[in-house]
Amino acid sequence: MFNKILVANRGEIALRIIRTCKEMGIPTVAVFSTADRDSLPVKFADEAVCIGPPPSKESYLKIPNILSAAEITNADAIHPGYGFLSEKAEFSRICAEHDIKFIGPAPESIAAMGNKSMAKETMENSGVPTVPGSEGVVESLEEAKKICAGIGYPCIIKASSGGGGRGMRVVQEESSLKQAYSMCKNEAETAFDDPDVYIEKFVEDPHHVEIQVLADQHGNVIHLGERDCSLQRRHQKILEEAPSPLMTPELRKEMGDAAVNAAKAVDYEGAGTVEFLVDKDHNFYFMEMNTRIQVEHPVTEEITNYDLVAEQIKAAAGKKMEQKELKMRGHAIECRINAEDPEHNFRPSAGKIEVFHTPGGHSVRVDTHAYAGYRIPPHYDSMIGKLIVSAPTREEAIKRMKRSLEEFIIEGVKTTIPYHIQLMEDENFKKGTFNTKYLEEFKFNPDN
Amino acid sequence: MFNKILVANRGEIALRIIRTCKEMGIPTVAVFSTADRDSLPVKFADEAVCIGPPPSKESYLKIPNILSAAEITNADAIHPGYGFLSEKAEFSRICAEHDIKFIGPAPESIAAMGNKSMAKETMENSGVPTVPGSEGVVESLEEAKKICAGIGYPCIIKASSGGGGRGMRVVQEESSLKQAYSMCKNEAETAFDDPDVYIEKFVEDPHHVEIQVLADQHGNVIHLGERDCSLQRRHQKILEEAPSPLMTPELRKEMGDAAVNAAKAVDYEGAGTVEFLVDKDHNFYFMEMNTRIQVEHPVTEEITNYDLVAEQIKAAAGKKMEQKELKMRGHAIECRINAEDPEHNFRPSAGKIEVFHTPGGHSVRVDTHAYAGYRIPPHYDSMIGKLIVSAPTREEAIKRMKRSLEEFIIEGVKTTIPYHIQLMEDENFKKGTFNTKYLEEFKFNPDN
Repeated sequence: MFNKILVANRGEIALRIIRTCKEMGIPTVAVFSTADRDSLPVKFADEAVCIGPPPSKESYLKIPNILSAAEITNADAIHPGYGFLSEKAEFSRICAEHDIKFIGPAPESIAAMGNKSMAKETMENSGVPTVPGSEGVVESLEEAKKICAGIGYPCIIKASSGGGGRGMRVVQEESSLKQAYSMCKNEAETAFDDPDVYIEKFVEDPHHVEIQVLADQHGNVIHLGERDCSLQRRHQKILEEAPSPLMTPELRKEMGDAAVNAAKAVDYEGAGTVEFLVDKDHNFYFMEMNTRIQVEHPVTEEITNYDLVAEQIKAAAGKKMEQKELKMRGHAIECRINAEDPEHNFRPSAGKIEVFHTPGGHSVRVDTHAYAGYRIPPHYDSMIGKLIVSAPTREEAIKRMKRSLEEFIIEGVKTTIPYHIQLMEDENFKKGTFNTKYLEEFKFNPDN
Repeated sequence: MFNKILVANRGEIALRIIRTCKEMGIPTVAVFSTADRDSLPVKFADEAVCIGPPPSKESYLKIPNILSAAEITNADAIHPGYGFLSEKAEFSRICAEHDIKFIGPAPESIAAMGNKSMAKETMENSGVPTVPGSEGVVESLEEAKKICAGIGYPCIIKASSGGGGRGMRVVQEESSLKQAYSMCKNEAETAFDDPDVYIEKFVEDPHHVEIQVLADQHGNVIHLGERDCSLQRRHQKILEEAPSPLMTPELRKEMGDAAVNAAKAVDYEGAGTVEFLVDKDHNFYFMEMNTRIQVEHPVTEEITNYDLVAEQIKAAAGKKMEQKELKMRGHAIECRINAEDPEHNFRPSAGKIEVFHTPGGHSVRVDTHAYAGYRIPPHYDSMIGKLIVSAPTREEAIKRMKRSLEEFIIEGVKTTIPYHIQLMEDENFKKGTFNTKYLEEFKFNPDN
């Protein structure tokens, strides 16, 4: 096991990692920017080293400073957390060159998943389903017909030079293909001065469902089931849950196998997440793989009772993984508590937290680096905590989340708590009938 | 289901009950003494009624005031919590007379368990093991021999008029019975002017192990396994855990069956706890039954995923209970956080809490009515919170508890947190080799 772990991150995830290290008896080093001097990870780590001022490129992204901190403290491993350097292949490589264990995959694995088109090709070659479509430009209506018939309707015709939602046509059946094809080409020519179009399977009403995998250094990969992260605002996840409301044991097995294959295809090591789109007919398509711990990992922890950060550390130290029958208990939901003002288009609300009272009780978990008197620095992302609850059923978990949100008292800054409370009362959320676009329609009502 | 529940209690258990009611969608009424005006249950309940000043006999124990509060708020059920009126048969009876459902057993069940000698007799008649012994005074050495041979050594000879540890002799084997018997009689005569002695089985090195039961109104009783509460100071539980370090599946079944029989014998309804002494050979003996929710109920909740307060309310509303295979996940520990000074013989430390920062993370639960700025009233017991953690194994739970205790920051009053931290590092505690007397020897070291 490692003698000392340096945590190359900040905020709640830095504290999260330090907690597990303490439980494992491994001393920790926190690194911090001058803006984070008073943060909890700095207080709770065994040692703390200042690595520069904000913004991040002067500190949390500055590899030489972090390596120097590891060297002066004799840390023999680095946990990168999420964001910052966690998915930089170069950082993994430089750590290895300095005989410091990077707690995560090899640089090659990170790079293979970092290049999205390369990743898609690797997945196709490994039998992991990707969104099917034309290989490049579709030259004729005849070719379009053939492709659509092959991948199945509905399809989407997209202008090669398009973007921002323009130059797209969804085709529900072959009878409307001819008109859609020619209109799309005309639009593309008019709008982008380029008539080229390509075709993809149109994934209707998709859920974002991701599979948690754990890979050891001996070629074994296991999975711990899924998380549903369909509720997003501007591609930022807002709320995550496990299991997914759409999941079946059969689909879980299929998706789990696909995720394990995805990880094996890139010689993966450690904890990772394979993200899929799932349509209403339970077809699923690889989107990307996150080669690090994710913000939403606690929902999996609460229902499986695995400590995912501990598993990352053990995998990095050589532990073997073995796929056992997946035992999941009940349902878990996470709400991200952001210092943002939902009444004013979620603009960040930095400043000093005057009152900070966290909820408690049965199966209520709070992961936060904030406290009463904490001043939120304006330089970083706005997440100040995560509220995670679990309960025997999804319905009970929603009720528990609502009462926990109502008990969460933060004064001094605006937060997304009222937005989440409204979401807990939303009929579509309660029924599980939402997709990745749902929050575009869902309007915050401050008088709720 | 009930239209409105009045919570006839204060502190953390009042908040605990309100939380479950909120999750069940049942409106609540908090009652409070003038000393508790600023407490969290008062803030979080839907309504709150002042029922008088401290001390408790002027408010929390004053039945007419509580019933008036129920009547003016139209509450149709009362949850008594623990302590105060929770085990007063009269209160259960008066509630029934006023057509208010007492969430707990009938007055007859409370009374049957409240009288300890009657309870012991009822248990004997129902086949629940009690500490065996002579029926009253032992008249001769011959009789003593017969009794000891019958119940098995070691036995304890006790002066009928004795007390405070005097006039007792433990007898390990028959060869020493004669001398012990005559010495004990002599001592009894000298010390208490009464040579009468009686004999009981001597329960060596006992653990306090209690079984959680749930009984419905239809004659069904189920059990949810045990809690080990051997760690006590002056008969006050300090730390509780589930499962018990000494438990085996066979013993759990035997004790579970005995507890179910105990509850059936008194026509029990609702949640209750049957307390046993268990010796090193796994013999167990009925001590008493608590006819209410217990302080330490969360350790059972965390490993079984039952919400015991919800089960109490459902049982009171007529739900049927069904014994299913007991699924327990991992190990849970609760530390009682008392506002007491362990450096000065645990004297109460009332006053204002200046800083109150609770721990968080994976499987860490905090049940508390305290907050930063809260002034602890001097009139009530000193418990200001409960820290409950769970983990896959007992060893991991101990480590998680230690790091959680270290994160729990309370300033302004002294607490038992440093004492618990020392306990987490104690080798006997780690090994599970302790008994109900263990904390008498365990000395707090403030420099630890």
